[in-house]
Amino acid sequence: MLLPTAAALLAAAPVQVASQPKPEAVLKTKAYVSAVQILDRDHDRMVDEIIKLTEIPAPPFKEAARAAAYRDMLIDAGLADVEIDAEGNAMGIYRGTGPVGGPAVMIAAHLDTVFPEGTPIKVRREGTRLHAPGVGDDTRSLAVLLAYARAMKESGIKVKQDIIFVGNVGEEGPGDLRGVRYLLTKGKYKDRVKTFVSMDGSDPSRIVTGGVGSKRYRVTFKGPGGHSFSAFGLVNPMAAMSQTIADFYKIPVPAKPKTTYAASVTGGGTSVNSIPNEVFIEFDMRSEDPSELAKLEQAFLAVVKKGVETENAARSVKEGAITADIKPIGDRPAGETAATQPIVRYAHAIISALGLSPRSASSSTDANLPMSLGVPAVTIGSGGEGGRAHALDEWIDVEKTKSLHGASVGLGILLATAGVK
Amino acid sequence: MLLPTAAALLAAAPVQVASQPKPEAVLKTKAYVSAVQILDRDHDRMVDEIIKLTEIPAPPFKEAARAAAYRDMLIDAGLADVEIDAEGNAMGIYRGTGPVGGPAVMIAAHLDTVFPEGTPIKVRREGTRLHAPGVGDDTRSLAVLLAYARAMKESGIKVKQDIIFVGNVGEEGPGDLRGVRYLLTKGKYKDRVKTFVSMDGSDPSRIVTGGVGSKRYRVTFKGPGGHSFSAFGLVNPMAAMSQTIADFYKIPVPAKPKTTYAASVTGGGTSVNSIPNEVFIEFDMRSEDPSELAKLEQAFLAVVKKGVETENAARSVKEGAITADIKPIGDRPAGETAATQPIVRYAHAIISALGLSPRSASSSTDANLPMSLGVPAVTIGSGGEGGRAHALDEWIDVEKTKSLHGASVGLGILLATAGVK
Repeated sequence: MLLPTAAALLAAAPVQVASQPKPEAVLKTKAYVSAVQILDRDHDRMVDEIIKLTEIPAPPFKEAARAAAYRDMLIDAGLADVEIDAEGNAMGIYRGTGPVGGPAVMIAAHLDTVFPEGTPIKVRREGTRLHAPGVGDDTRSLAVLLAYARAMKESGIKVKQDIIFVGNVGEEGPGDLRGVRYLLTKGKYKDRVKTFVSMDGSDPSRIVTGGVGSKRYRVTFKGPGGHSFSAFGLVNPMAAMSQTIADFYKIPVPAKPKTTYAASVTGGGTSVNSIPNEVFIEFDMRSEDPSELAKLEQAFLAVVKKGVETENAARSVKEGAITADIKPIGDRPAGETAATQPIVRYAHAIISALGLSPRSASSSTDANLPMSLGVPAVTIGSGGEGGRAHALDEWIDVEKTKSLHGASVGLGILLATAGVK
Repeated sequence: MLLPTAAALLAAAPVQVASQPKPEAVLKTKAYVSAVQILDRDHDRMVDEIIKLTEIPAPPFKEAARAAAYRDMLIDAGLADVEIDAEGNAMGIYRGTGPVGGPAVMIAAHLDTVFPEGTPIKVRREGTRLHAPGVGDDTRSLAVLLAYARAMKESGIKVKQDIIFVGNVGEEGPGDLRGVRYLLTKGKYKDRVKTFVSMDGSDPSRIVTGGVGSKRYRVTFKGPGGHSFSAFGLVNPMAAMSQTIADFYKIPVPAKPKTTYAASVTGGGTSVNSIPNEVFIEFDMRSEDPSELAKLEQAFLAVVKKGVETENAARSVKEGAITADIKPIGDRPAGETAATQPIVRYAHAIISALGLSPRSASSSTDANLPMSLGVPAVTIGSGGEGGRAHALDEWIDVEKTKSLHGASVGLGILLATAGVK
């Protein structure tokens, strides 16, 4: 956790702009220009790799097949020390010229998608549009990182700090960012990562510097169950759950600071002709403001209580009453990277220099975790356009000009951060 | 379907009691007395077989393992022509002395339970109580039928009509009584079955002569889905479904004629951090009175419509609106067996003669199907006591006196119906 006093000191420190080269100077280097030419030449290959990776299923906790494929691609890209760590993250190093074991930049795209096993993930191509669940969130970024590594290698780019390229697990599902958490609290590079960049989504003008906190719960409503006809009149956990969700969806939340909720995954029941013994529902709540998130969480707990009480009052409890087992399944830390941090300044400068209007945003991404640990971190886009993340009709547009332009932004930010010799 | 005129004729026909032996006379026959002594002697074996069969899983449509075991037990009991038919019913014949291919009595217990694959079904025994999902509904009856066949065989009982013993599939789940439907509309004995007895549940004083009709639906709510944070504000099919269920549980229904409903099985959702694309819920509705069932069905359809409209009005439909796919998954025919039918009169007489107070009831059982075809049918209990059918804490009591007494009722009804030489 970045201590408030330290943060204040950093914010107050005069920025030594005059004594340093401007970050956008990297864009003029022969190294960068050469690498972007290679990205241009190899754009079709990058698109092919987006498709290849998208079509390997990677539900939360089931990223292994995609991780193995990605490891092989990292090796093929010429990185060093390529491996899959104990949590399932695939990673490899682009060696810098700095001291062995010195400060490093970690750039990561997440392997996992939100889509459960069995979801059709074949990519449908229409012109320059690719349609498939997970294609933009976050599979394009995985392919862009491979393209960076290859282009840097071929151009012979020398960077000061090691760059650790990662395809990480555990961004989407439960587990509180288990992939990045492992990398930064247990992994072999945990003490070396001084800057963390998550590449997630497409928009290259957006810099996520605020980590939206989230609270997630799985609530299991339980009751006595019974025969739908002969035991009719007994309390039904389905009715209690439904009342809870209906009331949950009436909770007012502010548009600013942005505060959101969702009732997302459900299941349960014995058979069509039985009052169920138990049913469950998962909830997701988020806010840019921790106090709004806390208020929402209290309102949530109150509607669960009311849902249970309403059902126990409405029907018979002679065989047992409805109870709710309220289990926290996610608690993503909120965090922020100060505008004065080099990574934020570099990102702004590079985005502007490449003709876009940088805008800071808050979101809940892998960068939340380093932010919460005090490691400067941002999330940036990988270029092109996209939409409908987390929906079955997710898409990206890989029209070459825009796709390449966006990808060149991230490369500039990465090289400026690692430092080009 | 029993035509009203035919039913009226039957009801109006003078019952030739004087010219026939009283049905309870069967209880005095050497054959019956001997068979009951064997049931007594072999009671422990029957209990063992209840346990053995209960511990073989038999979810709807997945009865094959239990059917195979039951077929072997029917062979072992000495029945003829034992087989599993194309629908999955296990059956065998106790030959009568009547003409080959003549009228027959079918007595059936259902193999399937309501419990899905993976439900723990190990029997827990506490004194004379057996606890396990499905132990009473309807596994005890399967074991009782085996005990009947063995006792009749050993006693050398000669019956006039063939008795077809069946362990049938498809009573609990969807499929509109597919097991008995096959037996009576397609199976090899379909034209020979002139009386149908379903043994289901425990109470030996109850005669189900009314078939409660049921309507079952699976409703799938669909919407655009999206990211829980970035797409917050879009319509959520989970909210529409919850509103529907909450409203459904406010529909008033009469206690008499008994009319019931249940929201029973649910599922769906993409991931905890996604607005789902689709979720589903299954509904069961029943009534002793077809017009009450029709009223309930209309009220149900209205709440689904309202649930969808409420959600589409509450949140944004810019990416698409909520729709509900309303699919009928069950439509069990209602039916009735007239009090003047021999099977009903025999059951009343035997139950009374054995010291119990017979009572007619309505339920939704395998007997609904023959009733709807005009085949005289009842459902009777297999003896002992039991409770909590369709719940995980289902139990039966096999205390010997009561268990045997109840079982001897069914045997008397069966022999009176088939006719003892």
